[in-house]
Amino acid sequence: TINPQRLWDSLMDTAKIGGTEKGGICRLTLTDLDRQVRDWFRSQCEALGCTVAVDQVGNMFATRPGKRSDLSPIAIGSHLDTQPTGGKFDGVLGVLGGLEVMRTMHDLGYETNAPLMLVNWTNEEGSRFAPAMLGSGVYAGVFDRAFADSREDRQGVKFGDAIESIGYRGDAVPGSMKFGAMFELHIEQGPILEAERKMVGVVTGVQGMRWYEVELTGREAHTGSTPMNLRTNALLGTARIIERVDQIALEHSPSAVGTVGLVEVKPNSRNVIPGHVFFTVDFRHPDDAVLEVMEGKLMSAIPAIANEIGLEFSVKKVWDSPAVRFDPECISAVRKGTEKAGFLSRDMVSGAGHDAAYIARIAPTTMIFVPCEGGLSHNEAESTTLEECAAGAQVLLNAVLEYDQR
Amino acid sequence: TINPQRLWDSLMDTAKIGGTEKGGICRLTLTDLDRQVRDWFRSQCEALGCTVAVDQVGNMFATRPGKRSDLSPIAIGSHLDTQPTGGKFDGVLGVLGGLEVMRTMHDLGYETNAPLMLVNWTNEEGSRFAPAMLGSGVYAGVFDRAFADSREDRQGVKFGDAIESIGYRGDAVPGSMKFGAMFELHIEQGPILEAERKMVGVVTGVQGMRWYEVELTGREAHTGSTPMNLRTNALLGTARIIERVDQIALEHSPSAVGTVGLVEVKPNSRNVIPGHVFFTVDFRHPDDAVLEVMEGKLMSAIPAIANEIGLEFSVKKVWDSPAVRFDPECISAVRKGTEKAGFLSRDMVSGAGHDAAYIARIAPTTMIFVPCEGGLSHNEAESTTLEECAAGAQVLLNAVLEYDQR
Ligand SMILES: NC(=O)NCCC(=O)O
Ligand SMILES: NC(=O)NCCC(=O)O
Repeated sequence: TINPQRLWDSLMDTAKIGGTEKGGICRLTLTDLDRQVRDWFRSQCEALGCTVAVDQVGNMFATRPGKRSDLSPIAIGSHLDTQPTGGKFDGVLGVLGGLEVMRTMHDLGYETNAPLMLVNWTNEEGSRFAPAMLGSGVYAGVFDRAFADSREDRQGVKFGDAIESIGYRGDAVPGSMKFGAMFELHIEQGPILEAERKMVGVVTGVQGMRWYEVELTGREAHTGSTPMNLRTNALLGTARIIERVDQIALEHSPSAVGTVGLVEVKPNSRNVIPGHVFFTVDFRHPDDAVLEVMEGKLMSAIPAIANEIGLEFSVKKVWDSPAVRFDPECISAVRKGTEKAGFLSRDMVSGAGHDAAYIARIAPTTMIFVPCEGGLSHNEAESTTLEECAAGAQVLLNAVLEYDQR
Repeated sequence: TINPQRLWDSLMDTAKIGGTEKGGICRLTLTDLDRQVRDWFRSQCEALGCTVAVDQVGNMFATRPGKRSDLSPIAIGSHLDTQPTGGKFDGVLGVLGGLEVMRTMHDLGYETNAPLMLVNWTNEEGSRFAPAMLGSGVYAGVFDRAFADSREDRQGVKFGDAIESIGYRGDAVPGSMKFGAMFELHIEQGPILEAERKMVGVVTGVQGMRWYEVELTGREAHTGSTPMNLRTNALLGTARIIERVDQIALEHSPSAVGTVGLVEVKPNSRNVIPGHVFFTVDFRHPDDAVLEVMEGKLMSAIPAIANEIGLEFSVKKVWDSPAVRFDPECISAVRKGTEKAGFLSRDMVSGAGHDAAYIARIAPTTMIFVPCEGGLSHNEAESTTLEECAAGAQVLLNAVLEYDQR
C-alpha cells in the first residue's frame, strides 16, 4: 500500500513552485517555474534509480526496469503545468501519484514484470500555447514537432523558443520512448463523484472538444463624437457572439458546454470604440455529431452578427479533439484495482481533455478519477483531500499490478 | 496671417515622437515620449522669448508679454498627449496652432495688449489615467492635486509617480498661472463640418459625460467539466451589459451615445470560465437630465443581469462632467475672426470632452473646430488637411486679436 502522507507532502511541497496567495498554482508551461518543478521531478526519479529521458517537445520519461526487458513498459503519469490561476491537483496528482507508486515499489524492492514508466507531458493545459495536450499529441503523432514549435503564446513567444530557453529540449524523438499501455490518475474536475459519494471514477472515455479563434474588426472611433449609427463596434459584435455561444450550448443541454474564455480588446481605451477584438470559443460534447451541429450554428452566427454591425470577421478552428473511448482491458484493470481497495466507484466520461485522450490512439489507455470539492477546477480554490489523493494513488498502483500480472 | 507650411511641418515633425506604423501617434501621457514632446515644446517657446512655467500637475504655460502687464493674459492651447492608437491632430493641433500664432506675432514683432499664454494641459485623453481632462480639471479646482496624484493606470502606476519619473512636476501651484480667457483650437472629431462643407465650427458648448467602472465576479471553473447550469460566468454578464449599454444609448437617440471601451478578463484562459471582469462605460448627452435617466437605467440593469447569472458586482461612477456652455463674448470673437478670414462656419456643441470644458468654469472660454476626414478620431487614420489646420490657426489668431482689442 502507498504512503498517503508522503504523497501529500510531495503535493504540498511542489505546490510552492508557482504557489499563489490564494492557495493555487500559477505554473505555466515552459516558464522558469516549470523548469524548477521539472528539475525537482527528475532528481526524485533519479533517486529511485530510474533513468530519465526527455524528448524533443519536453515530455519527460522516468523508467524503472522490470523483470522482463522484452515487455513494453506500462506508463503512468500526467502533467505538472498549470493554468494561470490553477489548483494544486489538476495534473500534478497524476504525476506525484505515479511517483508515489514508484516510491512504494522501491521501498519494497518490488519488481514488476514489465518496466514502469512515469511520464510528465508538456503543455497539457493549453493555456499558454493552444491547443491543449500538445506534448502527448506530438508523442501520439496527432501533431508534428514543427507544428508544436510554431505555436505562439499571446505575447508572440514561440513554443520552440520557450523550450530552448528552459533547457528542456531533449534528444529523444517524440514517440520513440515506447510503452504498452498507460494509466492516468486525475481529479474529476466535475461534480459527479462528490454528489454521489463515490471515491473513484472509472473513466470510459473523453468527450469531444473543439477550439476556435475569432477576430472581429470594426473601426476605432471617438466614443463621444461618433453617433450610434456611424459606429462599427467590434466589442458589441463580440458581446452578441458570447451570448450566442451560451445559447448554442443550452440548445444541446444537458451534455453540451460552450464558453468564451479569452478576450483581447484593442485599443482597450475608455473613450475609444473598440476597433478589434480577438476571442476564443470552446465547445464540448460527448457526441462528435452534436459538436458538428454546434459548430454549424457558430459558423452561421458569426457572419450574421458581423453583418448586422458591419464588422469584418475571421474564424479559425484551432483544435478538434474527437470523442475518445478507452481500452476495455485497461478499464477492467482499474475496476479490479478499485474493488481490491474497497472503494465505491462509477463509470464516467471525462468532461476535460487529458493526455490519455491522445495516448489512447496509439496504446491501450484509461484513467482513474478521484473527487474534488464542489467539482471545482481551473480555480485556485481547487481542493482534494489527503484521503482522496491516497485512494487514487492506491487504485493506480493496484491497476498497474493487475495489468502487469495478466 | 499665419504660415500654413510651418504649422504643417511642426505637426509632422512632432508626430514622429511616438509615431506608429499606421501613421498615427501613441504618446500616452507622462511617458518618456510625452517628456520628449514636452522638451521640444518648451525649447520652441523659449526660442520665441517666452518664459515657460510648469505647475505641480505638469501643465505647461509659455507666456509672451503684452503691452500692458496689468491685463490678464489671453490663453490658447490644448494637449500633446494622445490615445494609444491616436491620430496626429487630436490636441496637437491646438498646441501647435497656438505656437504658430505666437511665431507669427514674433516674426512681425507684433505686441498684443494683454500677454499671450500658450498652454499644454496634462492628461487630457484620460486613456492612461481616468478621468480625462485631469490637468485642466486640477487647474480649474474641479479636482485637487492629491486626487490627481492618486490616479492609477491599469498597471498600477500612480499619476504622481509617473510625473516625477519624467521630471515634469513643476513648482507652480495649479491655478496660480492666471489668465483672463481661453481659446482652444481642435479638430471636430465628428462628421458634421465635413458633411456640411463648413471650414469652421463655432463651439457653443460641450455635452455632458459620465464614466463608470464595473466589476463582475463569478467563479472560475473548467470549461469542459462544468455543466452550464453550475456556472457563474462573469464574461456572460459583461456581454449582456455591453448590449444593454448600446440599447440605452439608442433609447435616447439621436443625441445619446454609450460605449464599453475597455474590458479586462481574468484569468483570460481559453479553458477557464471567466471568474472576473473589469470594464468601463462611457455615456454622453448634451442634456444632463437625460444622462441622469441613462445612468438610472444602467444602475438597474447591472444588478438585474448580475442576479440572473449569480454574479457579484460593483459599480463606481469615476467621472461626471456636466454639460458646459461657453462664454458669449469669446464665441463672438471667434465668429468675427471667422468672418474676417472668410470661412463658412456653423455653431456646434462638442461631443468630445476638452480642457476648455473645465476652464470654462473659471474663465471666459470657447473653442474653434476644424473638420477631420469622415469625422474620424481616436484612430491612427485621423486626417485633417494642411488647409484645414491653417484655417483653424488663422481663426485662432483672429479671435485672439479680436478679444485683445475689445
Ligand atoms: N484536464 C485539464 O484540465 N485539461 C486541460 C485541457 C482541457 O480540457 O481544456
Ligand atoms: N478631445 C478628446 O478626444 N478628449 C478626450 C476626452 C473624451 O472626450 O473622452
